Amino acid sequence: MKEIIQEVLAFRDERDWKKYHNEKDLAISISLEANELLENFQWKTSKEALAESKENIKEEVADILIYLIQLADKMEINLEEEVSRKMIKNAEKYPVNRKGEAVK
Amino acid sequence: MKEIIQEVLAFRDERDWKKYHNEKDLAISISLEANELLENFQWKTSKEALAESKENIKEEVADILIYLIQLADKMEINLEEEVSRKMIKNAEKYPVNRKGEAVK
Amino acid sequence: MKEIIQEVLAFRDERDWKKYHNEKDLAISISLEANELLENFQWKTSKEALAESKENIKEEVADILIYLIQLADKMEINLEEEVSRKMIKNAEKYPVNRKGEAVK
Amino acid sequence: MKEIIQEVLAFRDERDWKKYHNEKDLAISISLEANELLENFQWKTSKEALAESKENIKEEVADILIYLIQLADKMEINLEEEVSRKMIKNAEKYPVNRKGEAVK
Repeated sequence: MKEIIQEVLAFRDERDWKKYHNEKDLAISISLEANELLENFQWKTSKEALAESKENIKEEVADILIYLIQLADKMEINLEEEVSRKMIKNAEKYPVNRKGEAVK
Repeated sequence: MKEIIQEVLAFRDERDWKKYHNEKDLAISISLEANELLENFQWKTSKEALAESKENIKEEVADILIYLIQLADKMEINLEEEVSRKMIKNAEKYPVNRKGEAVK
Repeated sequence: MKEIIQEVLAFRDERDWKKYHNEKDLAISISLEANELLENFQWKTSKEALAESKENIKEEVADILIYLIQLADKMEINLEEEVSRKMIKNAEKYPVNRKGEAVK
Repeated sequence: MKEIIQEVLAFRDERDWKKYHNEKDLAISISLEANELLENFQWKTSKEALAESKENIKEEVADILIYLIQLADKMEINLEEEVSRKMIKNAEKYPVNRKGEAVK
């Protein structure tokens, strides 16, 4: 993941955009991008959405991760470590013997 | 990034949850988690939000990436490649000489 | 609609909450409430969601309108007039002879 | 409010769009419109956003209410009654003597 983090941060710094970045607006940006992703599925089944707009869906997925990387940099957190830590918490919340139960 | 992808997918498969996963509901889940992240900033400055709830913010960031990993797996796409590809497109859209202009 | 507008604003003013209200955080609040509504439909069909949580869905719908009323008051706009005005624009964008085409 | 409800439903029915409407996609639409509203505030203060895009903000507010009206019709609920009912619940949750405390 280091390579894409470096790409994203180099892109930001070449444009001198870090000065605009604050955590609240980055969180807003993630919600906006998540809804641009979701827009592809409006009035459609998953199958229809993928048939019509798979390329755009992939781009919106990338946009969300790009903003996550920038928020993580701003907060000085390591995304991979945070995921690992959260997975441990999730494993306690949803022990394996509850197999097949609905995910929250 | 391979390690956390494997952790997330192993967690899902140990619980037999893949059968519930379709792209539309995963996109919905990403919007829901993005708004759980954003809720930490409601009525607050970035600074206030971080002082009050940095741990929760980190967990919500992790939750978004966990769902992105699951959507990418379902769509059989490589998250890191998609980010690299999107960064090339972004570089064309925002050439470096427009330094310091507001990010879209 | 005047009655519910008065109820919502009286509630706000009895608690002296207007001082916290700015348009950006009210817009954030509307997105948060919209996602609390949407959460009822995660991993479910419309039918399943209504069978399981119709009461909560109704409350979330109310919460969104309550925030819209507060944003409209803060912006000094008339919600009903804005809807009428937007309907005229929509009618130009989607003339009636395009009957049955998918809504954007 | 009856007049705008009639306008919105007549518009929908003239175009034969009711057949596309299900509660889940209407809830998705409300989240999408809420984020189109929120986009006006990205990287901006409330004051800057209103100076730059007050007309668009008003249109997005209208769009959210238009979808709320359509969801309420589909669910056969009365929006004004739901708001009144929710205000009673909110009054119990936030009694007046807690004046000036932060809104949830």
